[in-house]
Amino acid sequence: MNIQTFKEISRQYKTIFFDSYGVLRNYQGVYEGVREMLLSLVADGIDYYIITNDASRSPEQLAENFVERGLPEITTDKIISSGMIAKEYLSYKINHGKVAYLGTERSAHYIESVGIETISIGNVDLAAVDDISALVLLDDEGFDWNTDLTRAVNLLRKRSMPVVVANTDTTYPRSKDEVAISVGGVAKLLESLSQKTFIRFGKPDAQIFNFAYRHACEQKPVDKQEILMVGDTLKTDIIGGNKFGIDTCLVLSGNIQAKDAELLIASTGIIPDYICASVTA
Amino acid sequence: MNIQTFKEISRQYKTIFFDSYGVLRNYQGVYEGVREMLLSLVADGIDYYIITNDASRSPEQLAENFVERGLPEITTDKIISSGMIAKEYLSYKINHGKVAYLGTERSAHYIESVGIETISIGNVDLAAVDDISALVLLDDEGFDWNTDLTRAVNLLRKRSMPVVVANTDTTYPRSKDEVAISVGGVAKLLESLSQKTFIRFGKPDAQIFNFAYRHACEQKPVDKQEILMVGDTLKTDIIGGNKFGIDTCLVLSGNIQAKDAELLIASTGIIPDYICASVTA
Amino acid sequence: MNIQTFKEISRQYKTIFFDSYGVLRNYQGVYEGVREMLLSLVADGIDYYIITNDASRSPEQLAENFVERGLPEITTDKIISSGMIAKEYLSYKINHGKVAYLGTERSAHYIESVGIETISIGNVDLAAVDDISALVLLDDEGFDWNTDLTRAVNLLRKRSMPVVVANTDTTYPRSKDEVAISVGGVAKLLESLSQKTFIRFGKPDAQIFNFAYRHACEQKPVDKQEILMVGDTLKTDIIGGNKFGIDTCLVLSGNIQAKDAELLIASTGIIPDYICASVTA
Amino acid sequence: MNIQTFKEISRQYKTIFFDSYGVLRNYQGVYEGVREMLLSLVADGIDYYIITNDASRSPEQLAENFVERGLPEITTDKIISSGMIAKEYLSYKINHGKVAYLGTERSAHYIESVGIETISIGNVDLAAVDDISALVLLDDEGFDWNTDLTRAVNLLRKRSMPVVVANTDTTYPRSKDEVAISVGGVAKLLESLSQKTFIRFGKPDAQIFNFAYRHACEQKPVDKQEILMVGDTLKTDIIGGNKFGIDTCLVLSGNIQAKDAELLIASTGIIPDYICASVTA
Repeated sequence: MNIQTFKEISRQYKTIFFDSYGVLRNYQGVYEGVREMLLSLVADGIDYYIITNDASRSPEQLAENFVERGLPEITTDKIISSGMIAKEYLSYKINHGKVAYLGTERSAHYIESVGIETISIGNVDLAAVDDISALVLLDDEGFDWNTDLTRAVNLLRKRSMPVVVANTDTTYPRSKDEVAISVGGVAKLLESLSQKTFIRFGKPDAQIFNFAYRHACEQKPVDKQEILMVGDTLKTDIIGGNKFGIDTCLVLSGNIQAKDAELLIASTGIIPDYICASVTA
Repeated sequence: MNIQTFKEISRQYKTIFFDSYGVLRNYQGVYEGVREMLLSLVADGIDYYIITNDASRSPEQLAENFVERGLPEITTDKIISSGMIAKEYLSYKINHGKVAYLGTERSAHYIESVGIETISIGNVDLAAVDDISALVLLDDEGFDWNTDLTRAVNLLRKRSMPVVVANTDTTYPRSKDEVAISVGGVAKLLESLSQKTFIRFGKPDAQIFNFAYRHACEQKPVDKQEILMVGDTLKTDIIGGNKFGIDTCLVLSGNIQAKDAELLIASTGIIPDYICASVTA
Repeated sequence: MNIQTFKEISRQYKTIFFDSYGVLRNYQGVYEGVREMLLSLVADGIDYYIITNDASRSPEQLAENFVERGLPEITTDKIISSGMIAKEYLSYKINHGKVAYLGTERSAHYIESVGIETISIGNVDLAAVDDISALVLLDDEGFDWNTDLTRAVNLLRKRSMPVVVANTDTTYPRSKDEVAISVGGVAKLLESLSQKTFIRFGKPDAQIFNFAYRHACEQKPVDKQEILMVGDTLKTDIIGGNKFGIDTCLVLSGNIQAKDAELLIASTGIIPDYICASVTA
Repeated sequence: MNIQTFKEISRQYKTIFFDSYGVLRNYQGVYEGVREMLLSLVADGIDYYIITNDASRSPEQLAENFVERGLPEITTDKIISSGMIAKEYLSYKINHGKVAYLGTERSAHYIESVGIETISIGNVDLAAVDDISALVLLDDEGFDWNTDLTRAVNLLRKRSMPVVVANTDTTYPRSKDEVAISVGGVAKLLESLSQKTFIRFGKPDAQIFNFAYRHACEQKPVDKQEILMVGDTLKTDIIGGNKFGIDTCLVLSGNIQAKDAELLIASTGIIPDYICASVTA
């Protein structure tokens, strides 16, 4: 396993796509040295974007969160979230009725901004579902799992509708050695129980990479060969970047520990172009 | 599709295994005519047993429930539940430590009766898991899904232990056209998130059929060819009976409606030996 | 189920994406009236493209095949195949070594046209695999399944490499009531045995739709809302189009018969915007 | 990881169940010292049986094979194969018509011995399938994969019938570092393409353990707690034995290397009661 420094690697590209969690930050906050790394990219004329599987907040709120944690450079236009792709889908395909959602009110406000009427799954009356035109999974909080997951299963039995999963991650880290079930995990349960085909947005799916690519090109035209995807997870960041046709760099500062990297790469067959200890090493 | 009367079919056998829900009863109570049907079996010298995927109650409590609903003939010795198989497994394989469980206190009392110490998942302290020797999924009630499913995932990350699913059903009917998620559905979620191999008891698995067969033979020796399994579900009752090597009869009084039976049999390739409208028709 | 005429529907769009098999043709040849339908689209200023899961031939050869069957209008620039996406991927990501392939020599020639050296799986020597940099599944013909599937499994055990599936279909119709296993079916077997994550191109994946969209826009700029995807298969054409954010039309001239359409749509939750008997009705 | 000697462990039991491949022998022949180990078991009054996922030969032929390789003590009555369970199933459930099979003629002869008429998949005429009452997967040899797998898929489309998989293993070792696809792997492909529910016999399924248990008890009554299952594979031997309620011993002489054992046990959650280097160590 040939480990290189991120500085050396990054200078071969014009644009960098960063995953957020495990790459720039963790549950405790932003990693030391990340701000300097980002500033030096800018100084060298390299663009960067954050590509994140998150539909719990708007890009504005995600950017604000970075600002509060000491990264004022990460403004709204630097953020590409799976929630943005889900919102685009809804604005194209849902023209009538209400969208039922699993998530917080905050997550619903974001998709309401394209004129869609929403209803929390907890408020759905199973005896009157004719005006519900889609089900969207936004966040793992904001509903009662004991009652509302069963309600969602019954909603899908009573009425045929598209189901959108706005975050494909199944778990997320909530402390040094514990995880929480995220809404993508909930989606797997509902999909298996309802036997329907859900529509998933977020890494590793090509649509979020394509959205990011178009967005980056609007700022400054760039070829795919000039973009590097940097992530800590083989099954989302690396396979997604590989498949989209851009170069990929695995960092060992999050999901995968250095001692396991080689075995995991061999056993999954997901091969990054580079491996770095971290984006600051 | 050749539909026959249950009376005609049943007289070719010495012992009948009945599924409970959708066959003898539904959410409203015992079907009309079931008591007469059972009494006529006995009058003709035919034994019967109830084979049910249920670990929420002891066989005593399951029998009591039938008595209360007007079937005093269904005594404890007539009941074979998946909970009994799980209890047998625990008594053989768990010799030390506590068994963490998802379910009600009532469901835990049953497995405690073989001298096993239990702890509800809600009371598990993730900082002190060394004395937990197994995780058992008993019932979909009795715990907080929002917090305790994540706790279960983390328990399995912190300590390697067998996980026993004492009811393989993923949903159960709770009214005419609604279902509830049962603990077998919860098991699918936890298994997929933890990537562990869980141990499942209950139809269609051979172990519950073998347990019932041995139990039946203790009362009166019988050949496999002399037993009929009667159920309303292809994926549990019928495939399980077929594979165990006994004859099977699908009834259309529960899970499957007459109009869909032929298509479902063709599309799954699960073929009952007989089809009846109901056990009373 | 509201069945409309294709003429009526198509006039609401500027560009039509057609699936080929089951929509424009079947195993016997091009459907009657298809040529007139295409000519009338052109006369009304509507663009069209064929989007097909096929990596067994180059777009030139696919176009030629249409010409031979009486559709001279379908020229190379009208064809978008999953093989084109696979070739683009290989040209971006494979810079050295040989690409081993499952398929005919003809299918290999196409990917060789970007300067990639190929070797048929049957010629791979498992004792010398260091120069093999990827495995590509192109076609179900051209190799010996008895020996070469096992060879492919062992190749993936000996060396970590990306595996590209250039056609996601698992079967294809070969006569009125028989199917053949296609290379996407073979891919499922190899992926399950090797436990690797394969990279799949073709409908329903977004990348082929995005490729087609960019290609269409080069001829004539068009909004996503002005495009209609027409297909006979829910799990590829319809869910893929829906997810990409374009309108979709299911035709009942191929995979799905009229009597089953409503049930299949309800049971999968994949909902087309329109349903037509055929593109000529 | 607490590694013990097999001699020490085995003396705590009255009956030992051995897996064959990777435990007593490999592709090169019987391991050194195995005969002495078996003789010393007998000298100490301990019974033993071989439990193997194999349907390519009769128990007589399997025993002969051991005799030829220098283990004359392994007579037919010591062998329990998944083929025996499949044969029992067929004799109970198939009363008419022909059974189509994938496998060699030799494998078919064995199931013919219960009076079942068989036809090799290669001889099935898809235009005349009315007299075919089941499909059985016996061996990975004896048919042309290119043509006969597709024929099997079409057979299952044309006629509803039970499909029996008489060996659940998906691969088997054919040399030091290569595997071959076995008929259980082929079964996965056919099941996924046909969407039918197949019936599988062999470890880890309880039915083969129960068959072995009954067989052992006929020779000498024994309690489950007095039996040890010895195997080299977590997903078949160990989980199967655990679930059946008998003690289990993982040996590191086959499938799993010592350096990976701990990680594999932790990641699968399949926990043997003991670990030994080999049955002769």
